[in-house]
Amino acid sequence: MLIVMRQDASREQIDAVIRAIEEKGCSARPIPGGERVSIGVLYNTGPIDPAVFQGMQGVKEAIPVTRPYKLVSREVKPHDSVIRVGNASIGKDRLVIIGGPCAVESESQAMNTAERVKKAGADIFRGGAFKPRTSPYAFQGMGEAGLRILARVRETFDLPVVTEVLDLEHFDMVEKYADIVQIGTRNMQNFSLLRRAGEAKKPILLKRGMSATVEEWLMAAEYILSEGNSEIILCERGLRTFVRHSRNTLDFSAIPVVRKESHLPVIVDPSHAAGLRDQVLPLSRAAAAVGAHGLMVEVHSAPDSALCDGGQSLYPDQFEVLCNQTRAIQEISRQNDKITRG
Amino acid sequence: MLIVMRQDASREQIDAVIRAIEEKGCSARPIPGGERVSIGVLYNTGPIDPAVFQGMQGVKEAIPVTRPYKLVSREVKPHDSVIRVGNASIGKDRLVIIGGPCAVESESQAMNTAERVKKAGADIFRGGAFKPRTSPYAFQGMGEAGLRILARVRETFDLPVVTEVLDLEHFDMVEKYADIVQIGTRNMQNFSLLRRAGEAKKPILLKRGMSATVEEWLMAAEYILSEGNSEIILCERGLRTFVRHSRNTLDFSAIPVVRKESHLPVIVDPSHAAGLRDQVLPLSRAAAAVGAHGLMVEVHSAPDSALCDGGQSLYPDQFEVLCNQTRAIQEISRQNDKITRG
Amino acid sequence: MLIVMRQDASREQIDAVIRAIEEKGCSARPIPGGERVSIGVLYNTGPIDPAVFQGMQGVKEAIPVTRPYKLVSREVKPHDSVIRVGNASIGKDRLVIIGGPCAVESESQAMNTAERVKKAGADIFRGGAFKPRTSPYAFQGMGEAGLRILARVRETFDLPVVTEVLDLEHFDMVEKYADIVQIGTRNMQNFSLLRRAGEAKKPILLKRGMSATVEEWLMAAEYILSEGNSEIILCERGLRTFVRHSRNTLDFSAIPVVRKESHLPVIVDPSHAAGLRDQVLPLSRAAAAVGAHGLMVEVHSAPDSALCDGGQSLYPDQFEVLCNQTRAIQEISRQNDKITRG
Amino acid sequence: MLIVMRQDASREQIDAVIRAIEEKGCSARPIPGGERVSIGVLYNTGPIDPAVFQGMQGVKEAIPVTRPYKLVSREVKPHDSVIRVGNASIGKDRLVIIGGPCAVESESQAMNTAERVKKAGADIFRGGAFKPRTSPYAFQGMGEAGLRILARVRETFDLPVVTEVLDLEHFDMVEKYADIVQIGTRNMQNFSLLRRAGEAKKPILLKRGMSATVEEWLMAAEYILSEGNSEIILCERGLRTFVRHSRNTLDFSAIPVVRKESHLPVIVDPSHAAGLRDQVLPLSRAAAAVGAHGLMVEVHSAPDSALCDGGQSLYPDQFEVLCNQTRAIQEISRQNDKITRG
Repeated sequence: MLIVMRQDASREQIDAVIRAIEEKGCSARPIPGGERVSIGVLYNTGPIDPAVFQGMQGVKEAIPVTRPYKLVSREVKPHDSVIRVGNASIGKDRLVIIGGPCAVESESQAMNTAERVKKAGADIFRGGAFKPRTSPYAFQGMGEAGLRILARVRETFDLPVVTEVLDLEHFDMVEKYADIVQIGTRNMQNFSLLRRAGEAKKPILLKRGMSATVEEWLMAAEYILSEGNSEIILCERGLRTFVRHSRNTLDFSAIPVVRKESHLPVIVDPSHAAGLRDQVLPLSRAAAAVGAHGLMVEVHSAPDSALCDGGQSLYPDQFEVLCNQTRAIQEISRQNDKITRG
Repeated sequence: MLIVMRQDASREQIDAVIRAIEEKGCSARPIPGGERVSIGVLYNTGPIDPAVFQGMQGVKEAIPVTRPYKLVSREVKPHDSVIRVGNASIGKDRLVIIGGPCAVESESQAMNTAERVKKAGADIFRGGAFKPRTSPYAFQGMGEAGLRILARVRETFDLPVVTEVLDLEHFDMVEKYADIVQIGTRNMQNFSLLRRAGEAKKPILLKRGMSATVEEWLMAAEYILSEGNSEIILCERGLRTFVRHSRNTLDFSAIPVVRKESHLPVIVDPSHAAGLRDQVLPLSRAAAAVGAHGLMVEVHSAPDSALCDGGQSLYPDQFEVLCNQTRAIQEISRQNDKITRG
Repeated sequence: MLIVMRQDASREQIDAVIRAIEEKGCSARPIPGGERVSIGVLYNTGPIDPAVFQGMQGVKEAIPVTRPYKLVSREVKPHDSVIRVGNASIGKDRLVIIGGPCAVESESQAMNTAERVKKAGADIFRGGAFKPRTSPYAFQGMGEAGLRILARVRETFDLPVVTEVLDLEHFDMVEKYADIVQIGTRNMQNFSLLRRAGEAKKPILLKRGMSATVEEWLMAAEYILSEGNSEIILCERGLRTFVRHSRNTLDFSAIPVVRKESHLPVIVDPSHAAGLRDQVLPLSRAAAAVGAHGLMVEVHSAPDSALCDGGQSLYPDQFEVLCNQTRAIQEISRQNDKITRG
Repeated sequence: MLIVMRQDASREQIDAVIRAIEEKGCSARPIPGGERVSIGVLYNTGPIDPAVFQGMQGVKEAIPVTRPYKLVSREVKPHDSVIRVGNASIGKDRLVIIGGPCAVESESQAMNTAERVKKAGADIFRGGAFKPRTSPYAFQGMGEAGLRILARVRETFDLPVVTEVLDLEHFDMVEKYADIVQIGTRNMQNFSLLRRAGEAKKPILLKRGMSATVEEWLMAAEYILSEGNSEIILCERGLRTFVRHSRNTLDFSAIPVVRKESHLPVIVDPSHAAGLRDQVLPLSRAAAAVGAHGLMVEVHSAPDSALCDGGQSLYPDQFEVLCNQTRAIQEISRQNDKITRG
């Protein structure tokens, strides 16, 4: 942390700040300048809240400097983490594509859709058995019956499945059936759930909160890693902004930033961000181009009769175009890793 | 819902939309206009996702019209709900003030602070025993030991206590000790927790998510109400915006909006929104002036040595000024209910 | 500025950064720490773009530290600036209230409204002669005819008038008629207009841009001050956020921040922020409570027939309530300057 | 517009709303529903402010339905507009790339950079002669001397040039030298400048305001079109959000939305959005993938010594990679126009 003193700060005020720093178990390094004094704070134990100093006499500002995350950091582990699920490797060269309906609605719906997405080129099947819904009166998912259908999809089509867990109560059950356990955007800072995910034997797909900073998102992953599970796939799904022509605004610059800061793989969910079918294909191409390791896309064999999010689900033939275009774009895009200098 | 067709929409496209509406179990009311046709959708069963129609040929836009909430709505219950806790009535004329530290750190810290806030004029004591922390390495609260200290505060000072519950696992425990159970901003859409809160025998203080719309917030309250608990206190705590001079931006216009839309009482937490002590008093006055039913403020007997959020905690004598100023302002402000026309 | 090096930064990379700093005419102060080296940059001439360093090998982050503004800063001029217009003093103890219609529509509309706002307690009259409109097809204001009506309002009711200038072309004309020249939110960074305002002989009311930081806002004021005009009134008018229940979200925490950072007076416009009449009175009270030096409120003698913004204009009798409540609240609020410690 | 009445609205209140609609010169179409009455408003003359009705007794909400823009709309002109400048056609199949420094600093800097960007594959050269700067003390551009250098670039390298105009005062001068006149993000709602641009004989590059909706942006273009200039290139440059890892957040979903709503071509500026060199190449690829007609990228022959925005400027060899990758990606991306259904 750096503490910037006011121009008119007195010697006593500066000394009081230095004492306060040392009382917190840290070291103070005053940096005299032309106009004012600044004081560098070295953490001997752990980070401190800047607001503690901002309230002190003579202090103009207290600015955090170092990152709070450790295990997720590329400084700690320089090489890319690769998560292997079935035949797919998330975090390596090939773009991994996850497709399937918002919610599992019936065995026939799931099987029909799975057949189509498999044929179109998907690596992994998605489908919700427990659905987070803004309204208590909306369809909440099929529960364990839905999970059993997902298991049948895996057996029939040799497709790993990813599905969301909403709470501690159902974690064991979801972990039993799923190949990847998803933690949704509303649960990104559900810390009990994160800790439980850290004890899971399955990889975790961790969506970014819709108003989370990249730092908070990586700290959420740090919760999981700190409990021992290092198989984490990050998933960008759009921010809440003032924009009204799409449901959320995808933060594409987060992809290169996460790849620079962390060794964990990062994918993009364009379907929930868009909220509208028309935008899903262009945004998927953009995600492949910007350097995401994968995509998670909603596809439905009959979107018009979907119980949930039908308006943003692709038709299977649109999804096939998507797989082809995005894989071709990713081929072109990843070449740059060798040719550009940092 | 209203579906607006494109100017060049064909008769067939319009008919297809009408059929789709009727297949969803709703009624369609075409409204011919000068430039284009619009179609009103009447919900015979429940609301439908606008995105379903936005993907259809000839459709320009589908606009939701009615509100999705029921039990929280003032249309359903016209009169203000009043929550009684100890001697305090939240939702009536008198401004209710909740004060106390971010976290319970020790018995002496809690008792010293409670004595001061009681004397300054607080109605209710706050203090966290389970703390949601961005970092897994930060102080996470004292747990049940903290709850026991809160119980002693209540007995000693005749102050009801409010404290946060983080997960289902500890709900019974928190409910046993607390007079009001708080659900924090990160858990506003933790639906399992909301349902459990709906079965609680204690009032729930429901903070607004930091990027939640008022509608989503009221729908979260609807989850609680729909399970049978109607004792809910809403709490505005600031939005995440681009602003950097405070931690969050309080949405003061939400107060009159919530009071118009819902019968539930609504209070303001200026401490977390500000993140800096200097802003807490002015923002508290503004909250009283805008019509909030109460305030929740962080106070610490020795902020400089606080384990959590010390930089935003008031000194006890500042809190006394706050109680006096805000109660005087609220006296002036509530007179307008009689004199202005809607 | 502070440059934070990566943990694995080499000696050569650190030296290269130091050289780059010195080549820019600044001094470098390395601060060795436990985990990594940071380098303080002292500006010998003027500030530098942090991005220049962020691209260098071994650099983790470059963080600006000092504020870029000078003349607007309270560090340069510790005492409050007070702007005197007619009998009003903006920046002193008494809350200054500006009232009037969005646009001057006719002599009778302006005179009727002026009579009512004067009687209700307004200090200054507002009314637009040149209107910034999103659509080229909307009413654009009466132009010079409107300015002449404003002059008649001043003469008849002894009320100073404030009105907006949209461009350089009409600045002389507006300056001739107005007592205060307003620069609107869309022009906050119209730098030619700011420079011209700096040469004006009249005070300038500078609205904050709807997505401007406080720093950018103060830098816009710095443009005016740097040309010689120190009579500036800042006006907060709401930010663009994701919120839909009001047109914009007022940033109330900006008021104490501006008062701390700058000597310039700051007022609040609740009408444009709300966009709805219902919210204007509560938000005005909040503005008085948070410490604003004044208010600018839209009032119309017959809002239902207004050509512009009628839905957010108060009826004259509502405005009278507003004047009384806000002045009483401000009386209570300003007492705190003496009793709280910083 | 649609006016939604409260459930308990009386017959008299409904009739009053209908009368108010008719007094504004519009037609009212009541739509009786199950729970409440809604009233469709047909504009016989022009649109009305919804807030006028929101204040009336018994009204729950007033919702605008139709779009306010006309000449920019694809409903009015179904086919893509193509802007021809030199050998480039903006709005057709081939991705148009604009490259060059933030500011013209000297003849040698401009000529060196132009030679490199031309060779790398740029179609158009960019360079600022008048710079909008947050601080009055920062480098403001070379003015007419800079424009003369741009003219020499065009002659020497057969590259059309685009440069920004800041105010009415210098419009004639900029128009004389430039092939495309740029209106910057801060001037998107400088209506006098937009009207002047509407009389220009040169194409206009209109950047989106950093907190403008797509609707406001298209309305700004409508100002230009309504004065007679239909040669407009829209440019997305990022929104102001809470994100701190890039300067702004590019709104990629705006590209398909603008292409659907309007016939005007739309390009992306990744350099200002990113603010950091590392992000420019990935974001450029994403822009090509999402369907932008072109890119505007900052390139400098020696970024480390740039007077302005050096940290976000590409090295010439990075720009060459960018041209190659983005053109290959756009080839793949535009194939979808034929194969996907709407």
